[in-house]
Amino acid sequence: MSVAHSATDDVRRWVGLPITELDTPVLLLDGEASQRNIRRMAGFFHGKKARLRPHFKNHKCPALARRQWEAGSVVGFTCAKLGEAEVLAAHGFDNLLLANQVVGREKLARLVRLATRIDIRVAVDHAEQLAWLSQAATEARVTLGVLVEVDIGMGRCGVPPGQPAIELARQAVALPGLRFVGLQAYEGHLVYADDPEERRRRTVEAFQGALQTRRALEQEGIPVEVISGGSSSTYQTTGSIDGVDEIQAGSYATMDWRYAQLAPEFEVALSVLTRVISRSAGRAVLDVGLKGATADFGPPRIKGNPDVEIPRFLSEEHCVVHRAPEWPIGQPLELIPSHCCTTCNLYRHMFVHEGGRVVDVWPIEASGRLT
Amino acid sequence: MSVAHSATDDVRRWVGLPITELDTPVLLLDGEASQRNIRRMAGFFHGKKARLRPHFKNHKCPALARRQWEAGSVVGFTCAKLGEAEVLAAHGFDNLLLANQVVGREKLARLVRLATRIDIRVAVDHAEQLAWLSQAATEARVTLGVLVEVDIGMGRCGVPPGQPAIELARQAVALPGLRFVGLQAYEGHLVYADDPEERRRRTVEAFQGALQTRRALEQEGIPVEVISGGSSSTYQTTGSIDGVDEIQAGSYATMDWRYAQLAPEFEVALSVLTRVISRSAGRAVLDVGLKGATADFGPPRIKGNPDVEIPRFLSEEHCVVHRAPEWPIGQPLELIPSHCCTTCNLYRHMFVHEGGRVVDVWPIEASGRLT
Repeated sequence: MSVAHSATDDVRRWVGLPITELDTPVLLLDGEASQRNIRRMAGFFHGKKARLRPHFKNHKCPALARRQWEAGSVVGFTCAKLGEAEVLAAHGFDNLLLANQVVGREKLARLVRLATRIDIRVAVDHAEQLAWLSQAATEARVTLGVLVEVDIGMGRCGVPPGQPAIELARQAVALPGLRFVGLQAYEGHLVYADDPEERRRRTVEAFQGALQTRRALEQEGIPVEVISGGSSSTYQTTGSIDGVDEIQAGSYATMDWRYAQLAPEFEVALSVLTRVISRSAGRAVLDVGLKGATADFGPPRIKGNPDVEIPRFLSEEHCVVHRAPEWPIGQPLELIPSHCCTTCNLYRHMFVHEGGRVVDVWPIEASGRLT
Repeated sequence: MSVAHSATDDVRRWVGLPITELDTPVLLLDGEASQRNIRRMAGFFHGKKARLRPHFKNHKCPALARRQWEAGSVVGFTCAKLGEAEVLAAHGFDNLLLANQVVGREKLARLVRLATRIDIRVAVDHAEQLAWLSQAATEARVTLGVLVEVDIGMGRCGVPPGQPAIELARQAVALPGLRFVGLQAYEGHLVYADDPEERRRRTVEAFQGALQTRRALEQEGIPVEVISGGSSSTYQTTGSIDGVDEIQAGSYATMDWRYAQLAPEFEVALSVLTRVISRSAGRAVLDVGLKGATADFGPPRIKGNPDVEIPRFLSEEHCVVHRAPEWPIGQPLELIPSHCCTTCNLYRHMFVHEGGRVVDVWPIEASGRLT
């Protein structure tokens, strides 16, 4: 086990060196570009009623979450997994929304343990979950905030808006140990719509059911503190809808080439440093593959070389570039992945750079903490 | 950091419990099925001239490598990354082949450090790599074994068989600090050929160039200790070719549904335990997505339910099952991924089970150690 530990402690010796001297592959974050993105997003919410609840699943890195918090407009963080919330709580963060269903005896025990220390809210979409949460909270003498998840078109979790959501909200209000906070509503089926006007129009439409549910609940005296949803490609729309209170944008802090097509006002701050390790006539092979740069939305692209295509990308530790420029063996290159979230999840650290030099190394403490 | 450590130390408390009580998602290994696979593969090589050099990149788990070693027929291990070799060496393994090019100052320094302790061999496909390796080895007063990588049709790393490979081998022989060991030849373009007879025929053809290169080198007095290559879907062919000495099979120890189509004599021992966390009419949502079960060759399949299809699988932490059976919320299920290697890389531990109970928890120490 000593190997793993020394590797972790060892990374800080790179601080101060040019990024091109780093061993490869490693995850890089352009600290200034990321900070500009964070300021831009915080700035959008200045003077708005809606607040930011950045999605921690994007980067899983507490130090980057700290920067998001310090930039303002942030009410708390969103998590996809309980393990992410535990990491954030260990770093002093409070007011966390686990925008997911919590099921299973062990997970319920962990959840109420966390609730003794911080304000943690969870999504629900079934009466059985409510009963389990109520029982666990009552036995642990804590109060759990719950948001009823409404399916606004994604077809994943959630109950339909209207009567099914209203019924669940009533049950949440009635059960001991629970505090009904509001509605979770994620337009996940629209965040990758390429046409900005279509994305805007359909997002506004999608939220109507959630807004009507809110009004119906308030008419029968059940206050709805928040509707929480949104993303980095829809924040301008969702953050301006009267009645949507929290925007769960995540990718803006790091970005990837796919999101850059959707939200070009943010800079791509994330990359994977790689090296040419083999080359022959026209062909170069890089020292990273699927285990270091996911291809969920297509192969990675080469920073500064938009015309160089990576046609196939199925090797675990290699990336073959056909018709490659005259890179020598050893040439360092930055790859921009198509999906920042799954790529960050592969690494233990991000190397933060400014002006071409490493200025900090941030542990990605929640990577690989899947439960 | 205390959170991460307690989570790691904490997992052994699950030993003895039914797997259905485990928190989800977690990686499971059927210890008996894996052991049968390991024995079957070792048995194939009994009495054969060729030896096994199992590829550690498959599972990255030293405890599982130990089982492969103890089953016999194993000459050493294959690694894809230097970090994997460092982990194996820390666990007492020796005679490791890094079947990849080693490039970069830091990596060369790590390599020669490792070579002071164990027999480590690396692949080369360029004169520059040889020069760097020779210099690093000479300065560190170690001897590095080198295998000239020949491209036998995959189109990734490697020089063509024949004159280019012979020329590189001559240089390796001439340079101080290096020991020319033989040829690295991987038929990666053929391991997923579905028709067994076509796969066999083309594999035999592919190795002819490497065999001719061997004969030419030996005719000029350069001994070729090994030709190393092969996989879990071609071992019967490659392991029977006179002149191919080491078979780098990996997936047989764990297996996945894609490899099970290619090598049905091995059992699928690997799975991801998940739970139903949401359900509505016909639809069930599981608590694992791309961050816990890669989809390189298609979505995962549900163990024991071959007819239930997972039609799309792009969420990070969810898996939507349409036309789902009558599973209640909380129902534990085992998913079989399409690619064992990238899935193991996502986890820190595998929970080994026998007869439905956890019998051990093995750290996947080299997961996330990408460099």
